[in-house]
Amino acid sequence: MTSTTGRQAGKDSDVGSLSRAGDLFQLLRDGRARTRAELALSTGLARSTVASRIDALMLSGLVGPAGEALSSGGRPPSRFAFNPSARLVLAVDVGATHVIVALTDLGGNILAEHRLAQQVADGPEAVLDQVVAQGKELLASTGRTVAELAGIGIGLPGPVEHDTGKPVKPPIMPGWDGFDVVSYVQQSLPVHVLVDNDVNIMALGEQSAHWPEHSNFFFVKVATGIGSGIISNGQLQRGANGTAGDLGHVQVARGADVLCACGNYGCLEALASGPAVVRSLKEQGLDVARGADVLRLAADGNLQAIQALRQAGRDIGEVLATVVNLLNPSVIVVGGSVGETGEHLVAGIREVVYRRSPPLATSHLRINVSRAGSQAAVLGASQLVTQYVLSPAIIEATLSGAIAG
Amino acid sequence: MTSTTGRQAGKDSDVGSLSRAGDLFQLLRDGRARTRAELALSTGLARSTVASRIDALMLSGLVGPAGEALSSGGRPPSRFAFNPSARLVLAVDVGATHVIVALTDLGGNILAEHRLAQQVADGPEAVLDQVVAQGKELLASTGRTVAELAGIGIGLPGPVEHDTGKPVKPPIMPGWDGFDVVSYVQQSLPVHVLVDNDVNIMALGEQSAHWPEHSNFFFVKVATGIGSGIISNGQLQRGANGTAGDLGHVQVARGADVLCACGNYGCLEALASGPAVVRSLKEQGLDVARGADVLRLAADGNLQAIQALRQAGRDIGEVLATVVNLLNPSVIVVGGSVGETGEHLVAGIREVVYRRSPPLATSHLRINVSRAGSQAAVLGASQLVTQYVLSPAIIEATLSGAIAG
Repeated sequence: MTSTTGRQAGKDSDVGSLSRAGDLFQLLRDGRARTRAELALSTGLARSTVASRIDALMLSGLVGPAGEALSSGGRPPSRFAFNPSARLVLAVDVGATHVIVALTDLGGNILAEHRLAQQVADGPEAVLDQVVAQGKELLASTGRTVAELAGIGIGLPGPVEHDTGKPVKPPIMPGWDGFDVVSYVQQSLPVHVLVDNDVNIMALGEQSAHWPEHSNFFFVKVATGIGSGIISNGQLQRGANGTAGDLGHVQVARGADVLCACGNYGCLEALASGPAVVRSLKEQGLDVARGADVLRLAADGNLQAIQALRQAGRDIGEVLATVVNLLNPSVIVVGGSVGETGEHLVAGIREVVYRRSPPLATSHLRINVSRAGSQAAVLGASQLVTQYVLSPAIIEATLSGAIAG
Repeated sequence: MTSTTGRQAGKDSDVGSLSRAGDLFQLLRDGRARTRAELALSTGLARSTVASRIDALMLSGLVGPAGEALSSGGRPPSRFAFNPSARLVLAVDVGATHVIVALTDLGGNILAEHRLAQQVADGPEAVLDQVVAQGKELLASTGRTVAELAGIGIGLPGPVEHDTGKPVKPPIMPGWDGFDVVSYVQQSLPVHVLVDNDVNIMALGEQSAHWPEHSNFFFVKVATGIGSGIISNGQLQRGANGTAGDLGHVQVARGADVLCACGNYGCLEALASGPAVVRSLKEQGLDVARGADVLRLAADGNLQAIQALRQAGRDIGEVLATVVNLLNPSVIVVGGSVGETGEHLVAGIREVVYRRSPPLATSHLRINVSRAGSQAAVLGASQLVTQYVLSPAIIEATLSGAIAG
């Protein structure tokens, strides 16, 4: 495995020789066991070619023996299948005040996980040193090695330039602007490193783990800020500059006189984020300091807290109604520290979306609280890596290395 | 060429043998001439395989001879290139009160075109009979034959179910709901028939003809209605039910007391469409009956007309600011009968979008009037067909037929 930049693969990989063994492997990714003859038939490759590809895939560990097929006379032919436990991924969720580092296999199964308090504002070296240290410790504690690592996926709480994995003017991450996260991590762990913003990664984690059959999927995170991750036509959408899904500064009707930190009036985040709900309840005389206080009060039946959450839901619903008109998703998932716990918030969202959106777009629309919860980000970081390292081009490159080396 | 349903190809074509000759052809689609040896090197295919593929592609006419390469001794090797003029497309734009039928080649070049008045409300048989008759006449008048037709692309002014090409409860198309457009047309012209809604097709036409380097592209049509077509990550986005881009019924702030035909208040279409602008100017005592009257008045410098168009632009801009936040396109194109002519409308759009959208998303954002103009739809209908018929799976299926037949 060689080091790469954070560039995403799989979309426009070379047509041609690069994709040959990749193709064969893509067939096997469904987990079904097949014989060499079956693979030759499905791919149109010569049986000798299939045999050498299978040898290379076995050498890499990505494919393993899976019993024998029924014989039609003579020695029964061997069968082969994808072996998702062969290689590992470090999946990292960097939040404003925490870091979660998980060790997963290539099937997105979490093998071990560390969560710790860590200020992202301590800067990239401090945070990434911690990530590397925790990753090595996870490997050691599970008896695995760096050589088994296929890649590292990292979610950051700010905008990330897709092609380079560098943060771009992230508001709550002093010292991170333009920092070369990929190269820095690769100095310690020389594997594929992919970086994306946390909400994109949460969308990917939630969708891949819990809604894989929905290819038009929308994830909204409600916490200190409000953001979203868009999966359209099965692909995570990042937009021209990587800012797609930036929901927090969409204007909502109720807030014409509410000033947002961005300088505009009426931004969704200024009305419906955790801090905004806390502020409105403080103004009503309630003793709340953080979003968690509001959620606790609501759980205890406090009507003001319930109403505030429901109104935040309506404000978010106003923007999501536009999302439904524009993108026509089949599932909207509400996550983030405030969103996850919020039956009242989701009720407000549903109220407005089903009233404001066109019947054809809402007849089968589901609006749900996150199922992945606080694991959404690490599941997504793992998925980001597996999508990349198991893509035809990277598989082929890996195998060429395996054969040559 | 066999008949098919309206299903779109290219996205998830079979991994494996199906894509082999398709792959080789995809290489040639860039128009560059190559020798058999160059193609073997680029694809990893055996030279004998390349030779037989090239024979089949030559037989189909999709690839033609393109001179000779320099010889390194001996007979100079032949070169081959994609031949976009080999096959034809009928590109059809069905509007509320018109039909345009154009004959194009596989490069999207319009060879001949008929425009005629035709009420879509006359029903599918009347309209499609007209389309078929016009298509045959175009072929005859250019000395071409049905056998040269690769496919037919049709844009309809209402929602279309993507997989079947059937209109779904189209509001201005009585008799069309659920009508099997594909089968009906194939009774007369047995080729691939693809159907989509007009705004999706306009987006595809504008982007493919004038902004091919922009893979995050947004087209808004402003006419009797307001709708949009979304191209994200290079792909036309249709959403879970084919209603993506339905911009007309997004709520805007100014219209809280304006009732829309859909039953909701404050829909963009009720405030900023051609009829809405006409209505507001009538209320001011102006003698206007149609959108064209407003545009004429504005061109003559009438301040009320100019202000009404600019305000419509601001309303549209309010929704487009949300689009920019959500989708981060690098180009927004304004088209449709009102949008095309509207420097005042576009000025209003720019005013709001650049004020309301985040700096990172607008630093390189362009907001332009349509360049394709009234040809956007036929260009898009042509592109819809070529994307399909030149996709690896369909090329391979076509060649198998060519070889077998």
